[in-house]
Amino acid sequence: MLRAAQAGGRVAFGYNRSLSAVDAARSDGFDADGDLVSVLQRAADVDALIVVAVPMPAVSDVLAAVAEHAPMCALTDVVSVKAPVADLVRSHGLDARYVGGHPMAGTAESGWAASDATLFDGATWVVSVDDGRDSGVWRRVARLALDCGATVVPAESAEHDDAAARISHLPHVLAETLAMAGARGGALALRLAAGSFRDGTRVAGTAPRLVDAMCEANATSLLRVLDEALETLSDARDALLEGSTSALTDRGFEAHQQYLARGGGNITGITPGAPRWLEELRDAGRTGAVLTELPARTET
Amino acid sequence: MLRAAQAGGRVAFGYNRSLSAVDAARSDGFDADGDLVSVLQRAADVDALIVVAVPMPAVSDVLAAVAEHAPMCALTDVVSVKAPVADLVRSHGLDARYVGGHPMAGTAESGWAASDATLFDGATWVVSVDDGRDSGVWRRVARLALDCGATVVPAESAEHDDAAARISHLPHVLAETLAMAGARGGALALRLAAGSFRDGTRVAGTAPRLVDAMCEANATSLLRVLDEALETLSDARDALLEGSTSALTDRGFEAHQQYLARGGGNITGITPGAPRWLEELRDAGRTGAVLTELPARTET
Repeated sequence: MLRAAQAGGRVAFGYNRSLSAVDAARSDGFDADGDLVSVLQRAADVDALIVVAVPMPAVSDVLAAVAEHAPMCALTDVVSVKAPVADLVRSHGLDARYVGGHPMAGTAESGWAASDATLFDGATWVVSVDDGRDSGVWRRVARLALDCGATVVPAESAEHDDAAARISHLPHVLAETLAMAGARGGALALRLAAGSFRDGTRVAGTAPRLVDAMCEANATSLLRVLDEALETLSDARDALLEGSTSALTDRGFEAHQQYLARGGGNITGITPGAPRWLEELRDAGRTGAVLTELPARTET
Repeated sequence: MLRAAQAGGRVAFGYNRSLSAVDAARSDGFDADGDLVSVLQRAADVDALIVVAVPMPAVSDVLAAVAEHAPMCALTDVVSVKAPVADLVRSHGLDARYVGGHPMAGTAESGWAASDATLFDGATWVVSVDDGRDSGVWRRVARLALDCGATVVPAESAEHDDAAARISHLPHVLAETLAMAGARGGALALRLAAGSFRDGTRVAGTAPRLVDAMCEANATSLLRVLDEALETLSDARDALLEGSTSALTDRGFEAHQQYLARGGGNITGITPGAPRWLEELRDAGRTGAVLTELPARTET
């Protein structure tokens, strides 16, 4: 994040609790510090935009420190789930200056050596448009995303989490299930496996704890989507028992065509802070459209 | 099949009920005929190996004609399901001269123009090793597969069908299910979809009737495997409700590692017709091994 923000032309400084990461960043010429309190005080002094980029289990402790040392700073995060983070932010009294974010990019690597100034180039970066967001903070968060090379997808936290369950977390759950079904067939089955099995199981090669972190943080949405999938599969099973899979394959094919044809124009003409701007951005995001530039500022 | 067999150095002639396909093959210099009875009589005259290469619903009619006009010919097939074809063969009284086959290759195209002499190059070709198979016929079927450029995987019909359900038919069912779950999230979800969704849904782009034909023909095995998958997913759902997905991800990851490490040496030293040859080939196939050449003939 530090590297990408600086590459995007920003004055950026960072905290990391790992002193070896801080040393590595410093020796590459970046402004990093291992002292959270002094970094937050500095953020408060310069009215920085604070980006919380820690795993979900660490978010609450960081927010507690923000609430103590920099409660008036604009605040965002890059955690892969949005409603639970928004809840934590609220519980720490930081709601007024918070706009959540989720850049849909990343690798399985971690640590400073894995940081990449181009990580967000061409990525989609969800920026929350929940009721009550501050348009000045929203602008700053969207500007950060654009400066990092991403396009902005406006979405409500709950809708983001539902979408993520559908297109990111369920794929992992089904890939694990398929991998298990294949291995249960032994070496003969695995020898006969071809493209459909290879592609359907690819993400089962992700480190289990990474998958757990994603899925468990989004448990509420994933449970609902998983129940839907169980119902689809149960219906398919019952229909197959009667001799036909056509209800499943017709609907699945049609759904896949919708995915292939997915649109997404550019969002233009909506000014953060103008009347109904949050509703308008929500509606635009629901059509699959993205923001590639910010309209001229009409308020501070 | 005709094109591949001829490319493999065989004297081959074919029947197709489509006269336009027969004309197209003839104008390319192939020996094709639209008269089933005369083709079967010719097969009987020259003691040909008959290859039934029609969709499952058409198999029974073709077998009836074989039983009437060429009952003593060696007989194989290339249908994607093996136990149901073996049952039909038995019901037509053709069991003694039958050895089933399934070349694991193909495209979504059909018709003579889509035929390809290199279709089976490097493919795996399952050849059945059910009890009671004739070693002379088995040799001829395996030789056909090898001449077409494939390697031979010996498998019992029921084990083939179970494996196909796991590594070919379940992937389709899960891909359809995932495509539906994604589309239900609307344009926003589809806009956020990335690699895991793309790969997990790829085969949902297959023509629905092709998927139906595969799945419905293998209904018995697919139902059992689908019930297993439903149980895996239900267990994962219950565990997620308790806050953890690690049981699923640990087992899924381990299964995927087994797939990536899948072995498969070459089968050597088993001579069709020698004592226990069928059991030995079955055991070898279960280790993931393949046959790339036939041992010298020890019987006729």
